[in-house]
Amino acid sequence: MVVRGAPAIGCAAAWGYYLGLLKLTPWPSSREAFEKLARPIRETLFHTRPTAVNLGWALDQMAAIPFEKDRESYLERCRSRADAIAREDLASCQAMGRFGLDAMPPGKLRVLTHCNAGALATAGYGTALGVIRSLHSAGRLEMSYADDTRPRQQGARLTVWELMRDGIPVTLLPDTASGLAMARGLIDAVVVGADRIAANGDVANKIGTYLVAMAAHAHKIPFFVAAPLSTFDFNLPEGKLIPIEERHPDEVRKVGETYRTVPEVPVYNPAFDVTPARYVTGIITERGIISSPSEESLRLFKENL
Amino acid sequence: MVVRGAPAIGCAAAWGYYLGLLKLTPWPSSREAFEKLARPIRETLFHTRPTAVNLGWALDQMAAIPFEKDRESYLERCRSRADAIAREDLASCQAMGRFGLDAMPPGKLRVLTHCNAGALATAGYGTALGVIRSLHSAGRLEMSYADDTRPRQQGARLTVWELMRDGIPVTLLPDTASGLAMARGLIDAVVVGADRIAANGDVANKIGTYLVAMAAHAHKIPFFVAAPLSTFDFNLPEGKLIPIEERHPDEVRKVGETYRTVPEVPVYNPAFDVTPARYVTGIITERGIISSPSEESLRLFKENL
Repeated sequence: MVVRGAPAIGCAAAWGYYLGLLKLTPWPSSREAFEKLARPIRETLFHTRPTAVNLGWALDQMAAIPFEKDRESYLERCRSRADAIAREDLASCQAMGRFGLDAMPPGKLRVLTHCNAGALATAGYGTALGVIRSLHSAGRLEMSYADDTRPRQQGARLTVWELMRDGIPVTLLPDTASGLAMARGLIDAVVVGADRIAANGDVANKIGTYLVAMAAHAHKIPFFVAAPLSTFDFNLPEGKLIPIEERHPDEVRKVGETYRTVPEVPVYNPAFDVTPARYVTGIITERGIISSPSEESLRLFKENL
Repeated sequence: MVVRGAPAIGCAAAWGYYLGLLKLTPWPSSREAFEKLARPIRETLFHTRPTAVNLGWALDQMAAIPFEKDRESYLERCRSRADAIAREDLASCQAMGRFGLDAMPPGKLRVLTHCNAGALATAGYGTALGVIRSLHSAGRLEMSYADDTRPRQQGARLTVWELMRDGIPVTLLPDTASGLAMARGLIDAVVVGADRIAANGDVANKIGTYLVAMAAHAHKIPFFVAAPLSTFDFNLPEGKLIPIEERHPDEVRKVGETYRTVPEVPVYNPAFDVTPARYVTGIITERGIISSPSEESLRLFKENL
């Protein structure tokens, strides 16, 4: 949890692999000898988090670099590929920001987000917060609303900090208040990030996203997911199959260092949930919008890339 | 917030009024003189909390005690009425527990609750937790699930403590996790308390209840409200008209004494929300169940009391 946010996890995995390779001495003399040493590094990195698909995607890119006997030349190619992954991620976020402007309802908007899908979750600019940044730059953001996002409070601790630092208007609310905010007409649109998107458009994202999506659906408020193509897992037919990380009970029992409940209480603490595609108005990618995501619309989108 | 929970607020108001009357010296000699001194006490108490209707209901009962020139005799009647309000509340909770058993689906159940509608919110036994207690006594509770209930964490701090103390199985979850818990089939029924119920069956309860109700509706999980008749406000046609208390931003910014976000961030912190009657499977009262609450079913129920 030192690195969090699916795109940032991808970047960190690529750089982490490069840093791991730096330590290989002596440099292996054959592809086979190299793989024997390099695969465990990738596997260690791969098993750090189960839900974000960008992790495997970035490691696959690194693994695809063909072995060279010249250590300096090979490491330079690896570093350069890792840098490119981060550079491409930043460019993707900026592209999502532009596409997001078109996808959003017209006029000045009050936009709710959950967790942190910002510069702190990516190589910069952010996915969902990239869309909010673009709205702000275009003079079309009236207010962003940030869910606290218990248990780890990424909304309160990261999103609020990131937006205030950039002078973007933001109001914090507890996770419990988004339903009433919608009922009272305070929210025009929702935009969140994603940790993995299945081939049918189901979206795994931070725990609590699903509740927000159901509430938005009930209030006919558009619900958008902003995610780079690296977040799509076309091999996974539906969201139910996405592995969900369960985290330590103390994340819920404690806030900071303080127990807020009986320390022995059993806890249910899944880190992500799955929002069915039917609740998603559109997925904003760096290559355009997928409206009303479904198996068919995702396949068509992929074929036309 | 030293006293919280709608029925407990009613009891405390009645006793508080009695304690206020104890201080009237010399004892007024006429009904008019008495009212001039007693009304401000009731008004002070009445304005402590805007949402729970039990507050005004208890004070109205106290105000209805006809003035007597004999101080001791009058104060004794007041104390006795306040005690009766608390005694009746306890009996009501026990009755709700019995009716709740019949209202619930059959078999051994996993029941989700939000906030604390327990012994700590009433004169004893609890409304929603009274139903959970009854299920447990009848050997029909497999597990109770307690929402954390940010910002004040009544679930983590009160419900968990209260149930564990009585040996009732409970699992804590963050407010963000109830949607996934339902999607995964972990929840058979929801039961919550209420702070005010409008004449059409709309229910004001702790912030976050509405999100749980929408999620239960989407998953076809029965959603029950356990509330004594003192919680009903037949003068209020619909839930939209229920006044919602907004509380201090620091409740959301801080946990305990520690800021968990930028201290200057604007905050949206409503203490209650309103669940429309259409999401409520049944209201469990001390006089029976109101199934599919609506203006008509509530009127019929009231006429048959």
